[in-house]
Amino acid sequence: MLGDISEGVIISMERFFNPQSVAVIGASNSPFNLGASICAIIKHLDFKAGVYAINRKGEAVQGCPGYRSILDVPETVDLAVIITPAGAVPQIIRECGEKGIRRIIIESAGFSEEGESGRILQEEVNGIVRQYGIRYLGPNCLGVMDMHSRFCCFFGIIPGMYDAAFDRPGTVSYVIQSGGIGALIMDSFRSDVVAVNKMVSIGNKEDIDESDMLDFFCNDNTEVIGMYLESVKDGRKFLETAKRVTKPILVYKVGRTGEGAKAAMSHTAGMANNDLIFDHACRQAGIIRVNSIAELHSLPKIFTAMPILKGRRIAVFTNSGAFGGIAADLLVEAGLEMARLSAETQERLRKTGKLYNAANPIDLGPAISMQTFLDVFEILLSSGEVDGLMPVPNVWQHVVIEAIMELVKMCHHFGKPAAIYIPNAVERIVEIRKEYMIPVFESPEEAVRALQVSYAHYRYSLKKQKRLQRV
Amino acid sequence: MLGDISEGVIISMERFFNPQSVAVIGASNSPFNLGASICAIIKHLDFKAGVYAINRKGEAVQGCPGYRSILDVPETVDLAVIITPAGAVPQIIRECGEKGIRRIIIESAGFSEEGESGRILQEEVNGIVRQYGIRYLGPNCLGVMDMHSRFCCFFGIIPGMYDAAFDRPGTVSYVIQSGGIGALIMDSFRSDVVAVNKMVSIGNKEDIDESDMLDFFCNDNTEVIGMYLESVKDGRKFLETAKRVTKPILVYKVGRTGEGAKAAMSHTAGMANNDLIFDHACRQAGIIRVNSIAELHSLPKIFTAMPILKGRRIAVFTNSGAFGGIAADLLVEAGLEMARLSAETQERLRKTGKLYNAANPIDLGPAISMQTFLDVFEILLSSGEVDGLMPVPNVWQHVVIEAIMELVKMCHHFGKPAAIYIPNAVERIVEIRKEYMIPVFESPEEAVRALQVSYAHYRYSLKKQKRLQRV
Repeated sequence: MLGDISEGVIISMERFFNPQSVAVIGASNSPFNLGASICAIIKHLDFKAGVYAINRKGEAVQGCPGYRSILDVPETVDLAVIITPAGAVPQIIRECGEKGIRRIIIESAGFSEEGESGRILQEEVNGIVRQYGIRYLGPNCLGVMDMHSRFCCFFGIIPGMYDAAFDRPGTVSYVIQSGGIGALIMDSFRSDVVAVNKMVSIGNKEDIDESDMLDFFCNDNTEVIGMYLESVKDGRKFLETAKRVTKPILVYKVGRTGEGAKAAMSHTAGMANNDLIFDHACRQAGIIRVNSIAELHSLPKIFTAMPILKGRRIAVFTNSGAFGGIAADLLVEAGLEMARLSAETQERLRKTGKLYNAANPIDLGPAISMQTFLDVFEILLSSGEVDGLMPVPNVWQHVVIEAIMELVKMCHHFGKPAAIYIPNAVERIVEIRKEYMIPVFESPEEAVRALQVSYAHYRYSLKKQKRLQRV
Repeated sequence: MLGDISEGVIISMERFFNPQSVAVIGASNSPFNLGASICAIIKHLDFKAGVYAINRKGEAVQGCPGYRSILDVPETVDLAVIITPAGAVPQIIRECGEKGIRRIIIESAGFSEEGESGRILQEEVNGIVRQYGIRYLGPNCLGVMDMHSRFCCFFGIIPGMYDAAFDRPGTVSYVIQSGGIGALIMDSFRSDVVAVNKMVSIGNKEDIDESDMLDFFCNDNTEVIGMYLESVKDGRKFLETAKRVTKPILVYKVGRTGEGAKAAMSHTAGMANNDLIFDHACRQAGIIRVNSIAELHSLPKIFTAMPILKGRRIAVFTNSGAFGGIAADLLVEAGLEMARLSAETQERLRKTGKLYNAANPIDLGPAISMQTFLDVFEILLSSGEVDGLMPVPNVWQHVVIEAIMELVKMCHHFGKPAAIYIPNAVERIVEIRKEYMIPVFESPEEAVRALQVSYAHYRYSLKKQKRLQRV
């Protein structure tokens, strides 16, 4: 434990994501060397700062000048990335301390997650970093990725694999405790309207933990924070930090059952936390607990691409009759309401074209013109009877896509969100979303869930604002 | 109500899906004529029987000979498909009766779903069919689709749209109350290992209802029955029929909430059923109630591509550590168990290669050879400690796909299922499933759900067998 995070530490944290120079300790030209893959990805991304490879032979790796020891590097080193066998780590950290390095990422595994001998090694590391005032990420982690600064020290990434992500930096930042989950999230964003800002893999989080990262993302250019946690290191700290964060926080936590907690423990050495307490804490601190890994990447777009939902009353419209009933069931089950449309509003809707049904859920019927779409959007969004929309338009003609693009603009104009679902096979949905960059969800359940979390965040924000005003 | 279904009616039902000759009443060459689209799709599929178009001018439509009245058709007509304005339907049915037709599909809308005047028209129809001993589907429906006989009388289908489905007939049959849902299911099967057998749209189901169809699919070449229902016409009949069916029945029902029921009522004129009673009845009758439309098409493959799950004990293995904990949580939450592997089994597993963790969930580590995969499969499938598998292999090399293909064979050999999830973006999963025709699910939740329904069906089957033995 290295004491509470301070203003000074927040400032220095930025340089984990955008260091002025980096040493990759353990990078060599041996076959399958993981450090070499870090040098390769840093070079591939054309990262602007100096990168040095430290290995026994002092050889250059992937175009990065090589040295036998960090102490031999002629320049100042801002960040050290360590990827050596665990046993070598304490001595390396000592040398880093001597070199004046205060930021380290320990990617090596073989610490507390591997039992008693690992725990002893961890204690040794803790003693050394305390001595030098070093802050570190890990061990047993992948480090960081920043699409804006174009810095990445994840090992095992094939150069080119995430080019699309680095070429389209976004605003969603992630704290993860698994490379597999990170890869899945990165992959899934390829076909979405929102993109990744930063990703940090905290591993065993012996020093910098999820709460520190939450605090950091609270103050940078992040819009939505996603977390995959296998444990919570310090429940009270997490709770107190989250209470201060007004950005949406989405958390998936493993270990809801004893079996899950046991599996997580062998993966990243966390403690089995009481899940009921965690759940209660989330509600207290305004954290949205998500129900699947998929929600970590599918839900952020309701925050980044749409205004927030400020009330429960949703108007559903579709040109595929069954989805009216399906949406109504799901919305009510999610604690939202079907907006009651007055006789006047229904009359105005009826005048827009050949609607099958002007009561909510509105059945647009199969043949609908662009003008009818626009009129329906305007009537509903401008109505004091409606807080948000759930459109379920079957994309059978190009005009439907054009209408959805207009709808997105109108949502911003009227300050009300639409959670759009297209009732097509998921392949087709993903294809359309990618091609036209429109925020569509992959199932009616996902769209309703998006409205639910948007409204939950709105209510959390009100509470947090009140609390902050009191202070 | 036309009395209970009898053996004779079951036999004749087959000819709704494979008629010896068809008349499409209301098919003409007017622009946007829906009947013409039925003639077009029948002709496009090269259906082997005679098809006649009936319209005011007596003109041929899409190559189908035309007549002014069904009474003018010189041949016997096996099935009449009616797609005229509702008001004309009673007289047409009378003529069909005179012509000796006993099977009709009324696709026209404008009956009970549109209020009092529609209900009066419906009464008139009921009187006439009773008089002639006619059985009919609809009104307000799309009729039938049979991938084996290559017959389809859905209106509005663009020729070519479902060619892939007709060229690859399968074993999953559907009863639907919405064309939109039908289209979504057909679309989704494009990229799955299992395919559609028959689909029937029952609309307002004034005569032939969901129970009759259940009974029919119980005795044909169907392996799994899927239903999308907006109401249940006769709860007791449905319950009694379902009790006799030993094939898996998956049902999605709208109207779980008052709002959903109201919306469904305006769509297909059903009665708002008490959802709690329905839920109880499903458990009584061994019906699997699914949680989303997606489950209607995603779950059947656990029945068609895998042996049934005969116990709760699941072994999880992955090369992406986090998914061990995620799967463990989900399995326990679904009422299944993490198999306890004995010291001997763990020792055997350890000997197969460089495993990270040989306890369940098994962490294969990143680098794994084909032989290690095969050894792990054999050890787990042959073990008396394991009833089923949940593999979560990241497909990072082609060997993983080859291993999955071998696993499918071995599952059949050992009579135990594997619900496979690939932790990649959904685009990639769908691509792999399509290319290699391997039964992979799209999320860990879906894979666990598949195991859950497989085991639920196993337990239902045992109960049903006992009941049948008692009778």
